[in-house]
Amino acid sequence: MNLKTIEYTNGTLRIIDQTLLPNRLKLITIDSLNKSIEAIKMLRVRGAPAIGIVAAYTILLESKKLFLKQKLNNRSFNQICDKLRASRPTAVNLAWAVKKLSDCYYENSNLINHMLIKNLEKCAISIHQNDEQSCSAIGHYGAQLFKNYKNIITHCNAGILATGGNGTALSVIYETAKQNQDIHVYVDETRPLGQGARLTYYELNNNNIACTLLTDNSAGSLFTAGKIDAVIVGADRIAANGDTANKIGTFPLAVLAYAHDIPFYVAAPASSFDLSINSGKLIPIEMRPEKEVLSFWGISKNAKYNVYNPAFDITDSKYITAIITEYGILEKPFNKNITKLIHS
Amino acid sequence: MNLKTIEYTNGTLRIIDQTLLPNRLKLITIDSLNKSIEAIKMLRVRGAPAIGIVAAYTILLESKKLFLKQKLNNRSFNQICDKLRASRPTAVNLAWAVKKLSDCYYENSNLINHMLIKNLEKCAISIHQNDEQSCSAIGHYGAQLFKNYKNIITHCNAGILATGGNGTALSVIYETAKQNQDIHVYVDETRPLGQGARLTYYELNNNNIACTLLTDNSAGSLFTAGKIDAVIVGADRIAANGDTANKIGTFPLAVLAYAHDIPFYVAAPASSFDLSINSGKLIPIEMRPEKEVLSFWGISKNAKYNVYNPAFDITDSKYITAIITEYGILEKPFNKNITKLIHS
Repeated sequence: MNLKTIEYTNGTLRIIDQTLLPNRLKLITIDSLNKSIEAIKMLRVRGAPAIGIVAAYTILLESKKLFLKQKLNNRSFNQICDKLRASRPTAVNLAWAVKKLSDCYYENSNLINHMLIKNLEKCAISIHQNDEQSCSAIGHYGAQLFKNYKNIITHCNAGILATGGNGTALSVIYETAKQNQDIHVYVDETRPLGQGARLTYYELNNNNIACTLLTDNSAGSLFTAGKIDAVIVGADRIAANGDTANKIGTFPLAVLAYAHDIPFYVAAPASSFDLSINSGKLIPIEMRPEKEVLSFWGISKNAKYNVYNPAFDITDSKYITAIITEYGILEKPFNKNITKLIHS
Repeated sequence: MNLKTIEYTNGTLRIIDQTLLPNRLKLITIDSLNKSIEAIKMLRVRGAPAIGIVAAYTILLESKKLFLKQKLNNRSFNQICDKLRASRPTAVNLAWAVKKLSDCYYENSNLINHMLIKNLEKCAISIHQNDEQSCSAIGHYGAQLFKNYKNIITHCNAGILATGGNGTALSVIYETAKQNQDIHVYVDETRPLGQGARLTYYELNNNNIACTLLTDNSAGSLFTAGKIDAVIVGADRIAANGDTANKIGTFPLAVLAYAHDIPFYVAAPASSFDLSINSGKLIPIEMRPEKEVLSFWGISKNAKYNVYNPAFDITDSKYITAIITEYGILEKPFNKNITKLIHS
């Protein structure tokens, strides 16, 4: 599939508007900070690595704009960074990418000139390219683990549409499929926004991977029936002890896998790790609007409903068999091995 | 609330069309076998006890019609029973109610006359009235267990709208609320058809029970946060060992409760027990149409999707703390105690 989730060509940033998939594949141009923040908040672009890449390009483009108006300075630069960082709180790749661009800016800020902009561009492009390479490496390492699995379940979308490359969890699927034609993926629809139903099924189907869609709450009966060999998901943030924030619904899947003695894998690049925190309890969880849940049921806008709508949950590392990174497979004890692998 | 899910007055059977809730409260008249089967299949009436009651009245009305045309005989009577029994396979109350009416017919079939019709009517009304009483008794016994619980989670709808009375699981809530004003219910939306979002929230809200709606996959994070004191659900069929078939998504909730050491209760009348089978593995699971899942995502009708859409799952009795029946609280070992309680 020639999907390009994020395109940066001749100074223009374009993304697939993922809210329109699978019915319509439309590229939109992101040419302002506000458009970028709107696209991130509305999930036109989503997936931890993809959000980081878009944030990096946005800082570049916005800095360039200010520079041409002779308005780029530490204060205006920091404002861009702060606004982007605040747009979604859970995925750490966003803060990570903002920091990369910020470090690049301050290393070069003694001279605010074309060279600074050039360096910011280099930095943003390298974040994008490195993510593409990380995805491939994750696929490579993961496929070694997955070669004997036939039926795999995944939640949300950790694929091409979530990254600058072939995905994290789905990169493992794509690489495994090259050796194992029998692979079949159960796709959780992923309420409330349907990243599984709308994005993952679309991606897998377009890449000729056999798949079956199900409501999130149907996974249990597949485990009981012995129809699941392994679970694989992406991550929005991984604490130093391996606790993992990912799309709401990931944790119940991990508990089901554990209860049925089925391996549960997380696939994520180093940019998704937050070694500054020791436990998933410290990861901020974004609460999303009530209407995301209510609109599906045709419930009148005037009806008063209390709704609990967290965007993510935390999977305790106890439930995670291993974490697949671009540096290799992370096994337990995560605390010790994460520092060794990611910092080596 | 003055909701009457099923009304039988002056020979006319009317039900609330539950597919229109919560936006519209409309009664429809069920005056033929086909209308009844359509209403059951389309979930205009749903909930194991309610389906049983509607089936009983349908047999009465259809028999009366045939009798007046002088076409009532064993063959035509059996046809009605067979068609109703086949309309939904999982909830055993349907087959149970059909058998009750059938037994009544064959006890009286030596004389096919007004008396036979009168007796069928008595039998149907008594099924309805007994269910109402069972609901009250379940509420009474359950409230003794629930008096110290504040935050309770439920799945699907096992309330007024699922029974001939105040419900099974929700009857426990209503009774508990009389003593414990602090009670608060987390309501799983219950994909794909939203019985939680559309029916349970509506019922509880109209009865002034504080509640919060959530996507099914959000329950995990509530358990982690220590926000759930107990789980209560209804049942579509309970095997002799306590394994329970209930709405898809019940089993994952049970596994979550077990992992967090939170009690998990099933509330059901004796008519939901199937002592002819020893294990949940033998309960037939109804598979529902793909479109129930797909239609929510605005996916084009021409798109080819493989969809796994079971209406129910089986919760292994290992995960069930106790079963609340109209005869009292069933505790483990279920195998032994079920026979004692239900047959006593």
